[in-house]
Amino acid sequence: MLPQWIIEKKRDGQELDTAAIRTFIAGYTTGAIPDYQMSALAMAIYFKGMTARETADLTVAMMESGKVIDPAGIPGTKVDKHSTGGIGDKISIPLAPLVAACGATVPMISGRGLGITGGTLDKLEAIPGYRTGLSEVDFFRTLSACGCSMIGQTAEIAPADKKLYALRDVTATVPSIPLIVSSIMSKKMAEGIDALVLDVKCGSGAFMKNIDDARKLARALVDTGVAMGRKVTALITDMNQPLGRTVGNALEVQEALDILNGNGPDDAQGLTIELASRMLAVAGIADPGIEAKLNDGSALATFHEMVACHGGNLEAGLPKAEKQIPLPASKSGYLSKADAEAIGRASLLLGAGRAKTTDTIDHAVGISGLKKIGERVEEGEPLCLIHSNGHEDQTQLFQLLETAFEINEQPIKPKELIYEIISG
Amino acid sequence: MLPQWIIEKKRDGQELDTAAIRTFIAGYTTGAIPDYQMSALAMAIYFKGMTARETADLTVAMMESGKVIDPAGIPGTKVDKHSTGGIGDKISIPLAPLVAACGATVPMISGRGLGITGGTLDKLEAIPGYRTGLSEVDFFRTLSACGCSMIGQTAEIAPADKKLYALRDVTATVPSIPLIVSSIMSKKMAEGIDALVLDVKCGSGAFMKNIDDARKLARALVDTGVAMGRKVTALITDMNQPLGRTVGNALEVQEALDILNGNGPDDAQGLTIELASRMLAVAGIADPGIEAKLNDGSALATFHEMVACHGGNLEAGLPKAEKQIPLPASKSGYLSKADAEAIGRASLLLGAGRAKTTDTIDHAVGISGLKKIGERVEEGEPLCLIHSNGHEDQTQLFQLLETAFEINEQPIKPKELIYEIISG
Repeated sequence: MLPQWIIEKKRDGQELDTAAIRTFIAGYTTGAIPDYQMSALAMAIYFKGMTARETADLTVAMMESGKVIDPAGIPGTKVDKHSTGGIGDKISIPLAPLVAACGATVPMISGRGLGITGGTLDKLEAIPGYRTGLSEVDFFRTLSACGCSMIGQTAEIAPADKKLYALRDVTATVPSIPLIVSSIMSKKMAEGIDALVLDVKCGSGAFMKNIDDARKLARALVDTGVAMGRKVTALITDMNQPLGRTVGNALEVQEALDILNGNGPDDAQGLTIELASRMLAVAGIADPGIEAKLNDGSALATFHEMVACHGGNLEAGLPKAEKQIPLPASKSGYLSKADAEAIGRASLLLGAGRAKTTDTIDHAVGISGLKKIGERVEEGEPLCLIHSNGHEDQTQLFQLLETAFEINEQPIKPKELIYEIISG
Repeated sequence: MLPQWIIEKKRDGQELDTAAIRTFIAGYTTGAIPDYQMSALAMAIYFKGMTARETADLTVAMMESGKVIDPAGIPGTKVDKHSTGGIGDKISIPLAPLVAACGATVPMISGRGLGITGGTLDKLEAIPGYRTGLSEVDFFRTLSACGCSMIGQTAEIAPADKKLYALRDVTATVPSIPLIVSSIMSKKMAEGIDALVLDVKCGSGAFMKNIDDARKLARALVDTGVAMGRKVTALITDMNQPLGRTVGNALEVQEALDILNGNGPDDAQGLTIELASRMLAVAGIADPGIEAKLNDGSALATFHEMVACHGGNLEAGLPKAEKQIPLPASKSGYLSKADAEAIGRASLLLGAGRAKTTDTIDHAVGISGLKKIGERVEEGEPLCLIHSNGHEDQTQLFQLLETAFEINEQPIKPKELIYEIISG
């Protein structure tokens, strides 16, 4: 079967069989099928979609394009969480050690930030010495010793996804649910996990701007996981305002430590506990008292152990920016808007993120002390604190932040953080 | 404007402006825009189409990717004919000298056959010595001397089309009207012509299988020509049975000579005269009596002169196949089917065409003496004569030909050859 016949079939809205999908992805991985055929197929998939079966087949094919970690090498029940990405989403950092402290094993492979969306790897690298690139032996050793390890994607994991992801970016084929799902799930399933919780972000700071799109993505992610024989639950959560009170790498690590100490901001603290509970549920592990694991310091201890296994040194202190500039409220009232997208852009301007993959990151900069929607503010009181090393255009920064916040005279009730839960 | 933004705009169904189209095609021609972005755009165009304005802009951009012949170098009013391709369509060969004998100038750049569709260049090369690759100087000289010249596409004409045509073939983006139109018209318009007649084939042996698709293509071709300031008329003609009584290169040249002698098969003779009349009309040249130019031998003389200018030698005789095998009618009655596609496939099997571009052609083989739909046949009488050099699988050949013909006891009226005429 020639590649163009497979493209033609999808173009005409027909379902591709398992063999066709596997042949195409295998050929693309070796280079036998060139980028120009893959991009044409991706565009046909954009227009015609894929059934749940096709999406699962595509995911398996991409997963099998590279190394699949043998779960036999890792003790315990292996469970992970994946977030589709947002602003201030540092939850993975306290969550992995918390769930490990509760008895599960969390082999977490995370990504880097791009555009306004932060990445767990960049945040962890704010910790002096933390190495995100462990050998497989060290990854297994860390999992055995601490119950969790947080590493970056290696070249061996899902190479087809690496190629396709870069190709989609330059061929306008990013926003396609089967392509998003297979990209996420091929990497997650290569971790050798038994169960997975997905946090599908929805709102101005997320890829999915509205609930309908978020619901479609969540459903497709869950269906694919289930088709691959895993236990999967997806939460759809709000990303109209940043999660927690900090955006920026070192600042978010500090907030992660606050959460592990049980005194993080309400939303981030609450979501961590909710996700931990869902992870234990899909892993089939009885809840040993999640809050107790925070209060007795065992989750924090697990985190310190894991950081040590990765070569990190929290005692050396997190990097700090030169200047802290408060952003005063223009009037008194109730915060009615703290736009995640605008705050994400401001953080990018400060140097906390990358406009393109080759950019370098300043781990110290960002925004802290963010007021949350519904909170009372008085005129002149800081809406947030800007941590700057002087990289940014200040005029542009303040223009952006002025559009980010709105204050209302009437009290306002914030949206619920968790919109929906979709189970397999 | 990044290429992916242009792809995204088309993907979302928006109209691309002139600058975007020109930038994309110019970048694709130099290689600055890679194949994988072009194929993604082509697939987006397949799904979302293009307006008449966009199609004209795409055509101009592709035309200007290479050399555009300066019409000032060619005397007279320049007019050409293009057929979308069919089985037994040798009309260009008698038509160009006939129209030249009537006072127009016909600078014809033709293509090769691929699949079941024959190509004028391959047919001309059945003439011993005929060179389809003339220098520009010799092309101009031939046009001045004979009023017509029939050459192949040079590397300098519309290189963007050459690249895109090959790319479409392997990315399932061939059947898209804006892409077909820009491919045809960019090459034709690069000839420096004033007017053009299009013969849009419709039926089993053509690219357009039904009248609706043929009408859409004809309309888009005419609109694009008119948008580029040319006089254009399109005919939609039947391609359910082969045109004339021969299929195969040397056999078709012989039939072309018959037409020039005024004694070709009714359909091929009639269509040649009709197209000649339309070409003179769009060129604004008064009809000097087309049939007279056939009867007095002047069209034939023009053909001989042109062949000589191209180095060809008709006196050397056309190549002949080793064996002539009649295909007997299984019963008496009226021919109700002579399927163009099946007869085209049979000719391909004999070696008269190419399955892929690198295949070589046997100019001698093919099929002659084809009965036409509606004609009376007696049991045992040949439905056609197979000219073979023994390349083919005889079992497969006879199986194919058996499905090609049907004989009915009742008299049957054949379809009109000309379905519709669409003017600019």
